[in-house]
Amino acid sequence: MAPPGKNVPVAEIEIAVRSSELDSFGHVNHAVFLNYLEQARFLALQEAGFDWSSLDEKGWRIFVVRIEVDYVAEARRGQRLLVRTWADSFRRTMMVFGQEIVRADDPETVVTRARVTGVWIDPQGRPMRVPEHVREGLSGDRE
Amino acid sequence: MAPPGKNVPVAEIEIAVRSSELDSFGHVNHAVFLNYLEQARFLALQEAGFDWSSLDEKGWRIFVVRIEVDYVAEARRGQRLLVRTWADSFRRTMMVFGQEIVRADDPETVVTRARVTGVWIDPQGRPMRVPEHVREGLSGDRE
Amino acid sequence: MAPPGKNVPVAEIEIAVRSSELDSFGHVNHAVFLNYLEQARFLALQEAGFDWSSLDEKGWRIFVVRIEVDYVAEARRGQRLLVRTWADSFRRTMMVFGQEIVRADDPETVVTRARVTGVWIDPQGRPMRVPEHVREGLSGDRE
Amino acid sequence: MAPPGKNVPVAEIEIAVRSSELDSFGHVNHAVFLNYLEQARFLALQEAGFDWSSLDEKGWRIFVVRIEVDYVAEARRGQRLLVRTWADSFRRTMMVFGQEIVRADDPETVVTRARVTGVWIDPQGRPMRVPEHVREGLSGDRE
Repeated sequence: MAPPGKNVPVAEIEIAVRSSELDSFGHVNHAVFLNYLEQARFLALQEAGFDWSSLDEKGWRIFVVRIEVDYVAEARRGQRLLVRTWADSFRRTMMVFGQEIVRADDPETVVTRARVTGVWIDPQGRPMRVPEHVREGLSGDRE
Repeated sequence: MAPPGKNVPVAEIEIAVRSSELDSFGHVNHAVFLNYLEQARFLALQEAGFDWSSLDEKGWRIFVVRIEVDYVAEARRGQRLLVRTWADSFRRTMMVFGQEIVRADDPETVVTRARVTGVWIDPQGRPMRVPEHVREGLSGDRE
Repeated sequence: MAPPGKNVPVAEIEIAVRSSELDSFGHVNHAVFLNYLEQARFLALQEAGFDWSSLDEKGWRIFVVRIEVDYVAEARRGQRLLVRTWADSFRRTMMVFGQEIVRADDPETVVTRARVTGVWIDPQGRPMRVPEHVREGLSGDRE
Repeated sequence: MAPPGKNVPVAEIEIAVRSSELDSFGHVNHAVFLNYLEQARFLALQEAGFDWSSLDEKGWRIFVVRIEVDYVAEARRGQRLLVRTWADSFRRTMMVFGQEIVRADDPETVVTRARVTGVWIDPQGRPMRVPEHVREGLSGDRE
């Protein structure tokens, strides 16, 4: 997967690796990174002007329908990581996020690269159009 | 904690240890046992005649308010475990479960003993009386 | 991702969804499927004649370097799932697994499709050739 | 369980609740708090002058043998929590930690109280004396 390039992260969060997240090799288990990435996407949506409580009020849901993750370097006990998130592309009912995890103490070292596709679901369980203000917020079109 | 004694388990489930549940020492992480125990309590409630969907319909919730766990022996990769659950005692709005995890291939070897207190919550967020049919089902008073 | 086609699963395991694996929508969280898939790959390796303890003895490690997962249908409380695993392809130091999760009570319903790339690492931390007996076992070339 | 009283926390860490840690009621699952508490104990040991790598070098391990947790208030999406850890008592081969989780934005609101007993294990798998510098560090006897 290509690095962000011209894409500007809408959010960057810091994550502290927890001891319970290590596998029997002493590294962060590969499934755990998906939790980090999810947490970062929620914060990116928030940064983009999205209010989580509106999701509950309107009965909307966001489902992950596809993930691709490249594991580039290990993460270990005690490390702090930065997770960068940007909008990669949109389709009518889908949004594709690009994400990158790097070491906080050495942001040149990429740990993980990911592309995550989410679909918006309406209260009847059907795919719905991505709300305009979310699309704008994620695209950096806020003024 | 005392072993079950005269208490008869209302349910026994088998759990296969998953590789993702091992810690950096190669043992099941101590927090993971709480997931096993929770899974077993839900099945015990079901065995006792409790229907999970009724919880959703009526807006009831069950909260864990206290746990005590003794870790007696390690569990390792590839092991299968049995989780036994019984009703330890009841108060008006609380139920106390006794639970025991043993090795499936050697049920004399106790891995974990636990006592878990749950409280029933009504739709207004207040403690409510444990439903009579749950109490009866867990007490083995079904006829 | 394409379905297995001519590929024959080397292993099929059954997984019971645990209550702790549900997200706030009542579905299995998308990261949890990676734990199911990992568990299934370990058992596939075992079925293929691979002995886990030899990994520890020789200081070998297997790292996941890439995953692709398509989430096709939801999994819910109480469901039992089947995870099928087959060898998709090999390169010198890499093996690519195809995996599919279906409902145990309705195996036509695909829940998740995945492709997972693992690399073998020697005690010095360098990629190593996939051991011949693993390659053969996974390819169904055992006699 | 009694609040810390005269005990002085040796460490206080901040934890951000992650979306993947919520259960189907939208609250932090009760098992997840054990991960927070574990993370906090490791940092408390570090603050007390303990070096994690020395554990690996010497082949020592620390096992949790008993936990007691009281769940006092819920934790929800987006909250930040403080975890306070102090040395409750020592026996020859055991150390007992007191721990308390409070809301970062309202530290008077206790979320969870815990008492956790850990035992030190030597390379032969036998309980060993708690290292003197750890005992001193945790007791605040450092000079």
